[in-house]
Amino acid sequence: MIVVMKVGSPETEVTRVCEDLKGWGLTPEKIVGKHKVVIGLVGETAALDPFQIQEISPWIESVLRVEQPFKRASREYRHGESSEVVVQTPNGPVVFGEHHPVVLVAGPCSVENEEMIVETARRVKAAGAQLLRGGAYKPRTSPYAFQGHGESALGLLAAARSATGLGIVTEVMDAADLDRLAEVADIIQIGARNMQNFSLLKKVGAQDKPVLLKRGMAATIEDWLMAAEYVLAAGNPNVILCERGIRTFDRQYSRNTLDLAAVPVLRTLTHLPIMVDPSHGTGLAEYVPAMALASVAAGADSLMIEVHPNPKKALSDGPQSLTPERFDSLVPEIAVVGRAVGRWPERQPVLT
Amino acid sequence: MIVVMKVGSPETEVTRVCEDLKGWGLTPEKIVGKHKVVIGLVGETAALDPFQIQEISPWIESVLRVEQPFKRASREYRHGESSEVVVQTPNGPVVFGEHHPVVLVAGPCSVENEEMIVETARRVKAAGAQLLRGGAYKPRTSPYAFQGHGESALGLLAAARSATGLGIVTEVMDAADLDRLAEVADIIQIGARNMQNFSLLKKVGAQDKPVLLKRGMAATIEDWLMAAEYVLAAGNPNVILCERGIRTFDRQYSRNTLDLAAVPVLRTLTHLPIMVDPSHGTGLAEYVPAMALASVAAGADSLMIEVHPNPKKALSDGPQSLTPERFDSLVPEIAVVGRAVGRWPERQPVLT
Amino acid sequence: MIVVMKVGSPETEVTRVCEDLKGWGLTPEKIVGKHKVVIGLVGETAALDPFQIQEISPWIESVLRVEQPFKRASREYRHGESSEVVVQTPNGPVVFGEHHPVVLVAGPCSVENEEMIVETARRVKAAGAQLLRGGAYKPRTSPYAFQGHGESALGLLAAARSATGLGIVTEVMDAADLDRLAEVADIIQIGARNMQNFSLLKKVGAQDKPVLLKRGMAATIEDWLMAAEYVLAAGNPNVILCERGIRTFDRQYSRNTLDLAAVPVLRTLTHLPIMVDPSHGTGLAEYVPAMALASVAAGADSLMIEVHPNPKKALSDGPQSLTPERFDSLVPEIAVVGRAVGRWPERQPVLT
Amino acid sequence: MIVVMKVGSPETEVTRVCEDLKGWGLTPEKIVGKHKVVIGLVGETAALDPFQIQEISPWIESVLRVEQPFKRASREYRHGESSEVVVQTPNGPVVFGEHHPVVLVAGPCSVENEEMIVETARRVKAAGAQLLRGGAYKPRTSPYAFQGHGESALGLLAAARSATGLGIVTEVMDAADLDRLAEVADIIQIGARNMQNFSLLKKVGAQDKPVLLKRGMAATIEDWLMAAEYVLAAGNPNVILCERGIRTFDRQYSRNTLDLAAVPVLRTLTHLPIMVDPSHGTGLAEYVPAMALASVAAGADSLMIEVHPNPKKALSDGPQSLTPERFDSLVPEIAVVGRAVGRWPERQPVLT
Repeated sequence: MIVVMKVGSPETEVTRVCEDLKGWGLTPEKIVGKHKVVIGLVGETAALDPFQIQEISPWIESVLRVEQPFKRASREYRHGESSEVVVQTPNGPVVFGEHHPVVLVAGPCSVENEEMIVETARRVKAAGAQLLRGGAYKPRTSPYAFQGHGESALGLLAAARSATGLGIVTEVMDAADLDRLAEVADIIQIGARNMQNFSLLKKVGAQDKPVLLKRGMAATIEDWLMAAEYVLAAGNPNVILCERGIRTFDRQYSRNTLDLAAVPVLRTLTHLPIMVDPSHGTGLAEYVPAMALASVAAGADSLMIEVHPNPKKALSDGPQSLTPERFDSLVPEIAVVGRAVGRWPERQPVLT
Repeated sequence: MIVVMKVGSPETEVTRVCEDLKGWGLTPEKIVGKHKVVIGLVGETAALDPFQIQEISPWIESVLRVEQPFKRASREYRHGESSEVVVQTPNGPVVFGEHHPVVLVAGPCSVENEEMIVETARRVKAAGAQLLRGGAYKPRTSPYAFQGHGESALGLLAAARSATGLGIVTEVMDAADLDRLAEVADIIQIGARNMQNFSLLKKVGAQDKPVLLKRGMAATIEDWLMAAEYVLAAGNPNVILCERGIRTFDRQYSRNTLDLAAVPVLRTLTHLPIMVDPSHGTGLAEYVPAMALASVAAGADSLMIEVHPNPKKALSDGPQSLTPERFDSLVPEIAVVGRAVGRWPERQPVLT
Repeated sequence: MIVVMKVGSPETEVTRVCEDLKGWGLTPEKIVGKHKVVIGLVGETAALDPFQIQEISPWIESVLRVEQPFKRASREYRHGESSEVVVQTPNGPVVFGEHHPVVLVAGPCSVENEEMIVETARRVKAAGAQLLRGGAYKPRTSPYAFQGHGESALGLLAAARSATGLGIVTEVMDAADLDRLAEVADIIQIGARNMQNFSLLKKVGAQDKPVLLKRGMAATIEDWLMAAEYVLAAGNPNVILCERGIRTFDRQYSRNTLDLAAVPVLRTLTHLPIMVDPSHGTGLAEYVPAMALASVAAGADSLMIEVHPNPKKALSDGPQSLTPERFDSLVPEIAVVGRAVGRWPERQPVLT
Repeated sequence: MIVVMKVGSPETEVTRVCEDLKGWGLTPEKIVGKHKVVIGLVGETAALDPFQIQEISPWIESVLRVEQPFKRASREYRHGESSEVVVQTPNGPVVFGEHHPVVLVAGPCSVENEEMIVETARRVKAAGAQLLRGGAYKPRTSPYAFQGHGESALGLLAAARSATGLGIVTEVMDAADLDRLAEVADIIQIGARNMQNFSLLKKVGAQDKPVLLKRGMAATIEDWLMAAEYVLAAGNPNVILCERGIRTFDRQYSRNTLDLAAVPVLRTLTHLPIMVDPSHGTGLAEYVPAMALASVAAGADSLMIEVHPNPKKALSDGPQSLTPERFDSLVPEIAVVGRAVGRWPERQPVLT
């Protein structure tokens, strides 16, 4: 950490600040510049709050952090290597990671009834998906909108899992539901609105199932990695990061702004696997295919795509859901780009 | 709600859409324009999702909502009148509302120890505050930062309440803590990061204590009022809205961008009382006084200001906390502006 | 356009508004809803300002626009077909458009000296670029930063053009330079900061050279198309749109947020060709390759990539410039993805 | 400036970087931390681009700027004192500055005809305004919207100036109009869309009239001060900064987000006078009064308020314009708050 003193700081004040910092267990090193004095801090500074140091003296202009605040999530923590998240599904292990093929997760926004979820699972599996998404508990802006079928939907997800062997990804909104949910889910999703629900992060960190952590709408890359750090610090090393669009000034033609550069940026900062959700990222089905291909070209390890047997009648998120037919035709397009960037296996079944 | 058909939509398709909408219990009325056909929908449309209607036909260009999606939070719900939230404190009732004096809430970010919280309570009471804020559970970006003293801090808040008679405002982060917290708190705060934690909103809506709902960092005015609607719909009519800064592209000199125009905007949209928190809104103590005065001039019903006996040593949010001395000198400044806009009582004790 | 009256609007006021609107040459059609009255306006409404109509009566709640405000830029204007922009270069015509191969534009941020610009031109041509970018006049945040070599740099661009036959893309900052600049440039660039410099837009619209219109940092898609409309309305039909990143709350790891979904969104709204600039879009060379590939996968018609013979010594934008060697290796990667999406010609020379 | 080396940087590379920096005329001072090495740079670093230094070595993690990039605009440049801008008007000098009363600038968005502008000038003068605003050249999003009456409107402004003695504030959009405009204008306005039109900034910096510099919609405080620096560096010391709202994610109920905290932030960073424009800042007349009062309470040196004799019929910006009657009643409200914060003269005529 580096302390920048204001122009004209009295020598005695600089000395006092240095003395004070020694009391924090740090070794201050003073650099006298042409206009300003700066103080470099040697020692364990990662846990310090720069704002607190700033309060030591009114002559401190700013305190700059040199170390990243995230540790377990950092790429350095794994000595520059990426990590793998292995998900056990009835059909066998599915591996998320930089050196593995792109994993396809697909399914409806919410679980509506048994026929619908089992049929969708069959369709997305046939098209090439390895995991089924489907919400039992749904975060909705309006209290009057459909809130998900809750516990009963968990049973339907279990049925779809048995019927197809696909692993299940579903969202937890309330820690009280976690145990029941973990009986069915192969991956537990934390939604964008709960990305900084730290109580919930600690609780999913204290259980065994892999965690899919969606980026909050106003979360910086650093906020997001710090949220992942909560899960990792609580003992669960299996976190997958999912970019799903951020909120910007332009919301007229797409619901969110999909930040695809997050893919290469995260690759340099963290070892964790990276998923992209172009369905929420754009909010409109017609833009999903282009952004799915772009995500793979950008280096994503996985895609999450909403598919609904009848988007017009969907209880939630219909406009951003693909029909099974469109998903059927999209997977081979993804495969072509996936092969172009070396992220698609020859063995993987692709409809043509 | 209004359905706009694309240029060149076939007559048969317009007819089909109208028929379909009748099946939803709506009465469609067609307007044939020079270039486009639009369909007005008469009936109960507030609960409908425009995106779902859009899926009826690929020829629908857009669906525009005419009615506001919030009901109980809307000013119309109270026939244009504002509501009051009355908080029972040991010192007597404190009333938040448009036709009442500005209410001052002050105190530290987090409760650190008994002496600190009781002393701060005494100081802010002497200066003119009616309620004490103080965090027992703290949402922190880093899992390695101080997380609040938790349950033990609740006891300390109770001590400060007994010692001074001030009402207590404290944040709930986990529904599991709600009962314990409600024993001490006179107002239960939902923090910005949990503004769309809908499970938690439902639970604070199902209990009796007034709720202080902070605006999320990326929450639109409408998102925020819909979050209030969750609490209101669950049965709790006592909601206070607190503007605390939004996240924008410029974060160099202030942590957040305080959206003061939210005050007059909310006044036209909702009957609920409006608080402003200039401490989080700017993130730096030196900007708090100017923005506190501006908030009162803009019409705020209440201010929440962080005060710490020794900001340099604060365990959290030190840089944005005022010293008790600065708060002492600020209250008379607030009073002068408060009187100028007719929101400061003659009786209220003011230090000079 | 649609006028929504407030709940409880008096019948006489609705009638008065309708009468007033007739005076504007419009045909109002009234729809009486359960709670509200809305008035549909039939006639030429595209040039009307909704805010002005709102002022007709205090009982008007909102005025909703149904027609897009851009005409010549709209896809409908070309009956749903995309347009081509043909640029005449010494090496022959280069065509930008949806049904043509991806066009590569490459070169340094600014023209530094003859050797540097001619050498860079040779290198990027050899690698596969069809046009050379290079700034003579540079918009810089600081008045103390290098401002470009100005007029003398135009001569150096002409030399590079002669030496290689590449077309030249260069930015105009001042209308007074336009004639001189047009003698050298094959495409005239309007930079992001001048996207709403309407005087300049009118002037580039009144000359013959194709115009490359970069998106402003806070420009919505609609603002951007309206800026294009200024050029089109002034008589110049050859406009290429260039996405180069927008400004959002997260600027820590990339300078801007590249909005790649703008590519499919623009495709549905406009007939104009679409370019992406991943160099400015990310601001860091290490993220440029991933985003270049993603842009092609998303459907971009062209890429603009900064290449500098020695980025460390560049007078501007060094950190986001690729070395010629990295560009050499990137083009074949682009070609592989370009072929995967059917946008790369077999004939085009590709280094391997 | 401070150079942070990556973890594990070889000693030889650190040495090489230090040697290289000496070649830039800087004195590097090395601090060896527990995990990282940082290098402090002593010397004239304000003109250096941190991104360029970063390119010296791939082992450089980041380069942090310690000095502010603006000089002439900085408060330090005036030794911590604020500056005054004195505008000569027929009615005598009007002084903008921290230690002077709040200056009121009022008038219509655009000059429509002689009667309208003279009448408005008389009304706003009677209410207490010292300067008249009015656009001859109007930046409009659409090429089909009213673009201002141009040169002929300048004559009408001159007539209003003669009739009332009020100083004139009007916007320049094209440097070619500058001379003509300067014959009439007492203050030359640079609009938000041209805030980074650096050619224009240099030209208004090279003439004598005071310059009103509006903040760009996506301009950071630093961008804005750097734009002021262009004017100052070109020789014109009389710059007034005008906050007029920034663009954020929420644009439903107000056109822009008025960033009032910019007032105290600018006060600490710069000596230049600060104006607020609540009309553009909110976009709706009903929110203007509250934000005008808040601006004064926040410490603004001046207000710019749109007033139109008949907002319903205004050719531009009608919805955000006050009627003369509302302005008449607003000035005394402003006066009351102005007196409360010591920024309103006893002598100033106030209607009651």
